[in-house]
Amino acid sequence: MKFVAEIDIMPHKELLDPQGKAVVNNLKHLDLSDVSDVRIGRHVSMTLEAASEAEARQKVDTACQKLLANVIMETYHYQLNRGE
Amino acid sequence: MKFVAEIDIMPHKELLDPQGKAVVNNLKHLDLSDVSDVRIGRHVSMTLEAASEAEARQKVDTACQKLLANVIMETYHYQLNRGE
Repeated sequence: MKFVAEIDIMPHKELLDPQGKAVVNNLKHLDLSDVSDVRIGRHVSMTLEAASEAEARQKVDTACQKLLANVIMETYHYQLNRGE
Repeated sequence: MKFVAEIDIMPHKELLDPQGKAVVNNLKHLDLSDVSDVRIGRHVSMTLEAASEAEARQKVDTACQKLLANVIMETYHYQLNRGE
């Protein structure tokens, strides 16, 4: 079965996100001073084959923990959808 | 009212994504050769104040089009949630 995992990898809430802070500051110049917080991470869309949803979740977790996310500084969560 | 927009900014489907290709190749070394496609973009979590949902959507669209996304090479879509 084909699955598509939509993964969000974000910096931990406790950590400063200087890129997000820079965006907040720059949005003020676009008259968007109502934006109080921005945090910037990565979005990964992954297509994979697996025999079951449990196996797919295991594969996505392995990929995130070993390659995609730095689990010391980042958290990841994902949504798994059946692909066509 | 407070809103939180969860924005995904991804490279257009028609464009090559070399970063994603590199991830697919490297996942093979983790015994994850069942992963057929990876595309990598950005995820932005934005907290903002707005009088209504329509106003919030307008603000998020302005921020995406003018600052966050390069609409020539990227598409964005987002989900708007009420913040606490």
